Amino acid sequence: MKRIDSVKNEHVKRWKKLKTKKGRETTGRFLIEGYHLVEEAIKAQKLVEYILLTEGANPPATLSLQNEDVIIVSDQIMKELSETETPQGIAAVCVLPSEPDVERLEGQFLLIDRVQDPGNLGTMIRTADAAGMTGVILGEGSVDVFNSKVIRASQGSIFHLPVMKGNLQEWVLRLKHAMIPVFGTSLQGASSYTAIEPQAQFAIIMGNEGEGMSASLLEMTDQNIYIPIHGKAESLNVAVATGILLYYFKG
Amino acid sequence: MKRIDSVKNEHVKRWKKLKTKKGRETTGRFLIEGYHLVEEAIKAQKLVEYILLTEGANPPATLSLQNEDVIIVSDQIMKELSETETPQGIAAVCVLPSEPDVERLEGQFLLIDRVQDPGNLGTMIRTADAAGMTGVILGEGSVDVFNSKVIRASQGSIFHLPVMKGNLQEWVLRLKHAMIPVFGTSLQGASSYTAIEPQAQFAIIMGNEGEGMSASLLEMTDQNIYIPIHGKAESLNVAVATGILLYYFKG
Repeated sequence: MKRIDSVKNEHVKRWKKLKTKKGRETTGRFLIEGYHLVEEAIKAQKLVEYILLTEGANPPATLSLQNEDVIIVSDQIMKELSETETPQGIAAVCVLPSEPDVERLEGQFLLIDRVQDPGNLGTMIRTADAAGMTGVILGEGSVDVFNSKVIRASQGSIFHLPVMKGNLQEWVLRLKHAMIPVFGTSLQGASSYTAIEPQAQFAIIMGNEGEGMSASLLEMTDQNIYIPIHGKAESLNVAVATGILLYYFKG
Repeated sequence: MKRIDSVKNEHVKRWKKLKTKKGRETTGRFLIEGYHLVEEAIKAQKLVEYILLTEGANPPATLSLQNEDVIIVSDQIMKELSETETPQGIAAVCVLPSEPDVERLEGQFLLIDRVQDPGNLGTMIRTADAAGMTGVILGEGSVDVFNSKVIRASQGSIFHLPVMKGNLQEWVLRLKHAMIPVFGTSLQGASSYTAIEPQAQFAIIMGNEGEGMSASLLEMTDQNIYIPIHGKAESLNVAVATGILLYYFKG
């Protein structure tokens, strides 16, 4: 078991850079913290590079302390790496997962078009996981999925199902080519979602919090749907809308 | 139109106290800020006591500046009242609504048992509004509904439908007495929600983020239901679960 006490240690300097999107992209690593997330990452295997523990922290039961990857760090180091007021004393440096090689496209997909709020994105991934979706496809212009707030709101679900990044226009073409019906969401020119039958295979696109889906994507879908508003609210939260649609389509 | 420039003005001192739950309860007032919320409050009538504008702010079109209740305040005052980094320059002091007098209980109700996160509570109220629910009943031990984060997450929906506070045990008895079926939510000893038919009248109880509904309430319901988890997530976010259930029960 290694031990690092100085905040000026080269490892620590590198890990601190993982708090920014640029730092994550140049190093191919990301940081997580807290018992629950670290346990989920250990379960997901292959992803964890180092587990960082403070002296006072209880290691999770699933973790062997003989493990070479466990490093004891000072409270000060943990504090500088953490984004919470009172760190739990456990964090991990993880390797960004490689894009899964999707040879034959089948199943149920959630496509996300420019969602900005990290809490919303994390909750959408958690919801897609709960609904048993095959994968999530994150379009350009969305908040970074390895942002610590996204990871926290996902409650570990980013370790449970593939989250792929890509150009949504290309993905819609691929999905349609694979005979998977693609549903857009829009308040205009759309049918109520209850007019559609639950589906064995489908893809649903959810759009930006304020603006909704981009017009060019809406033109490419097989059908566009909306959730009726029965009261005086202007709209639903995008993660709530995702839950309503995914659970309806799963039948 | 009045004008207040000093942060030591007695009004300003009183308004600053509205940032705490205690201050809201002793004065029977609460603060809101931003164009969208102030417009919703104006539409709801009777609730707005003062509208506060900075010199540079554009008043909403729905607001008559001849109105006695409009007060121009300095940027410094707005900054001290605001909870955002860059205030929009518009805020309002509102009167806490009185409990509606429910003579004959009928319709569709969302009951909330000890939900702690302001974002979750606000989003649940917004979702209940969108689903066209008759009212929301907030049990003891939940976060205060006039907390600024709750109001913001509700996106104005707290002005659209009655949100009543009360003892949930008493409310369950009242609802059952009025022949409205009451559904609890629990992962144990419950049926999948899809086993129930959509209902014309119903009440659904949602519980605390970590612990769920209290055991004593679960024993009082007509039936308890759960949302199946198809993937590896441990649970759904409580606001997402609310959306799935309310929209399902509305049919």
